[in-house]
Amino acid sequence: MADLDRRDLLIGLSGLAAAASAGACRAAEPPARKIGYAIVGLGYYATRIIMPQFANCRFSRLAALVSGDPAKARTLAAQYDVPERSLYSYQTFDRIRDNPDVDVVYVILPNSMHAEYTIRAAQAGKHVVTEKPMSVSVAEAEAMIAACSKAGKKLAVGYRSHFQPHNLHAIRLVRDGAIGRPRYLLAEHGFVQGDPTKWRLKKALAGGGSLMDMGVYSVQAARYLTGEEPVAVTARSTTDRKDPRFAEVEDLSAWTLEFPSGAINHGMSSYSSNHNFVRLTGDKGRIELEPATPYEGQTLSLTRDGRKEQLTPPPGPAVNQFVGQLDHMAECILNDRQPLISGEMGLQDMRIVDAIYRSAAGGGTIRL
Amino acid sequence: MADLDRRDLLIGLSGLAAAASAGACRAAEPPARKIGYAIVGLGYYATRIIMPQFANCRFSRLAALVSGDPAKARTLAAQYDVPERSLYSYQTFDRIRDNPDVDVVYVILPNSMHAEYTIRAAQAGKHVVTEKPMSVSVAEAEAMIAACSKAGKKLAVGYRSHFQPHNLHAIRLVRDGAIGRPRYLLAEHGFVQGDPTKWRLKKALAGGGSLMDMGVYSVQAARYLTGEEPVAVTARSTTDRKDPRFAEVEDLSAWTLEFPSGAINHGMSSYSSNHNFVRLTGDKGRIELEPATPYEGQTLSLTRDGRKEQLTPPPGPAVNQFVGQLDHMAECILNDRQPLISGEMGLQDMRIVDAIYRSAAGGGTIRL
Repeated sequence: MADLDRRDLLIGLSGLAAAASAGACRAAEPPARKIGYAIVGLGYYATRIIMPQFANCRFSRLAALVSGDPAKARTLAAQYDVPERSLYSYQTFDRIRDNPDVDVVYVILPNSMHAEYTIRAAQAGKHVVTEKPMSVSVAEAEAMIAACSKAGKKLAVGYRSHFQPHNLHAIRLVRDGAIGRPRYLLAEHGFVQGDPTKWRLKKALAGGGSLMDMGVYSVQAARYLTGEEPVAVTARSTTDRKDPRFAEVEDLSAWTLEFPSGAINHGMSSYSSNHNFVRLTGDKGRIELEPATPYEGQTLSLTRDGRKEQLTPPPGPAVNQFVGQLDHMAECILNDRQPLISGEMGLQDMRIVDAIYRSAAGGGTIRL
Repeated sequence: MADLDRRDLLIGLSGLAAAASAGACRAAEPPARKIGYAIVGLGYYATRIIMPQFANCRFSRLAALVSGDPAKARTLAAQYDVPERSLYSYQTFDRIRDNPDVDVVYVILPNSMHAEYTIRAAQAGKHVVTEKPMSVSVAEAEAMIAACSKAGKKLAVGYRSHFQPHNLHAIRLVRDGAIGRPRYLLAEHGFVQGDPTKWRLKKALAGGGSLMDMGVYSVQAARYLTGEEPVAVTARSTTDRKDPRFAEVEDLSAWTLEFPSGAINHGMSSYSSNHNFVRLTGDKGRIELEPATPYEGQTLSLTRDGRKEQLTPPPGPAVNQFVGQLDHMAECILNDRQPLISGEMGLQDMRIVDAIYRSAAGGGTIRL
């Protein structure tokens, strides 16, 4: 594992290597001290998906809560054994600097707040995990990386699929040549939005529409499955502005990424139809993930010589993708390694997202 | 059926109506005289796929053969009971004018020859079916339509999927609202080319690469499934010019079509990977055809509320798509109706194909 440091900014293969190493660690003794997480923002994803997973973690524990709703924070604190002294409001957040129980701050706020709380957390001397999208602009992502670097703290993005067995196995199959040379990758992500008042439909909070939210999964999948970085982006978008859900943000984004190998990716995101599908065709076969990136229920198939076979991947590095992500960051802190799901990885996604928006706005094909 | 004439240039719903009408005719008595086809070009598709189907036709018969290989023509003539007087070379082709057994000429030549033989057939006073792609340019397609119009003869393109049960049922499902409002349509068609000397890899004969050959299926599917005509085309292309197969024509084309409803289509064609897949997602569900447009073996599924169901469509208008196409043209001639798979439908495909090539060559987004 000595060479991991040199590869830690690469996606795909390095992700696999780390996942395997994390898996190999599972038989080891638990550490003397678990890494303490502060959760910032107590919405659905934080409270229903992430927080219950600390019970399954080997290297991570819930240490603090940050919320604008003191009653909610207190209720959850009681449930998760978080002491009163480790509850913060957004006003008192910076005092987290003085809390030795907190090693890492996990920002699960609306997109436009990721940068501010990442930077404040770094300035408070804490490592940071931020939810995806990393930010709402390239400049913000760069500022977040700079702030963490200046503070000597690690930065990760909540890219849980890098710890999900079907996605990991798909990457492995592609790298092992199971489909030959990758030629065309389709990635669809979307869901039907309902309530027009949700923060994800407000430009100031979400930074954009389906692309910011679901599109990032499509972009990520294209990157980690091909193992390549796109060199050109061409995009179109369609939105019914009379639909009250889409007064501020785009509905459907559709883009084309071109990779150095000559592979092409059609990606899309939607807020008016349900999608969760990745399909990569090479000159010798095809893999499909459907659904590809939900909280659970992934399936993976491999098609060769016209025969489609459902595959059961080997277990991932942890009991599930959420635990894998939480414990990966904890291990990185414990062992002073760079997280694989790094700020740089998030920054590259933001560059692609930015290019998609500019291209769709009439910018033609944008070279990266 | 009185209104069919007014709708005969529309795709989709009119195709369904006609298909239904053709189906309804199956119980009727056969006509006193079957329509006589001359087959021009005796390659694989003509001899192995189309010619054996005349035995299953109710309204069509094989009446003449046109070939540059007299021995091959004579062998097939003996097999199919075509008289010696109805065998032509490319030099003697125009004498077909004097052959009362021939009502319609079916052009199954390399793409670049479709225009010449369509126009010569019309000038010889015969109706015409030409294989897809209709031509290798918009100007040729327009000239073909003009020639047939001037001669008072009907012109059709060999779009067999309009007579294929799974495709017809998919159209019906979409029109009946089974998937709600169509939002995103993916259409993939391609296969791995082998022998670099094949005519399909020669620009002068094929007019282009995978787009001309397989891409037309993707474009057609987008049109007949949405029932809409695209208003904008944006495309990219990738070809390894060092690959001997791709010295003259493109390998992979990838395009985005925008429809007036706001639906978006990602289409692609490839000569370096196998694809035959159409997937249309609406705001209430999804249909998938895989394979979508082969000679046989289509499957159709409908996904709603997260449940995917394989569907068995009702029978098409004829025993198979080839017979459906042959007999549809024959019925149109017998009843003086315009074929649904019209020259205008083919011309529109050529306009889209032309826009895809121009956009991929750096033309940005092209409005249609």
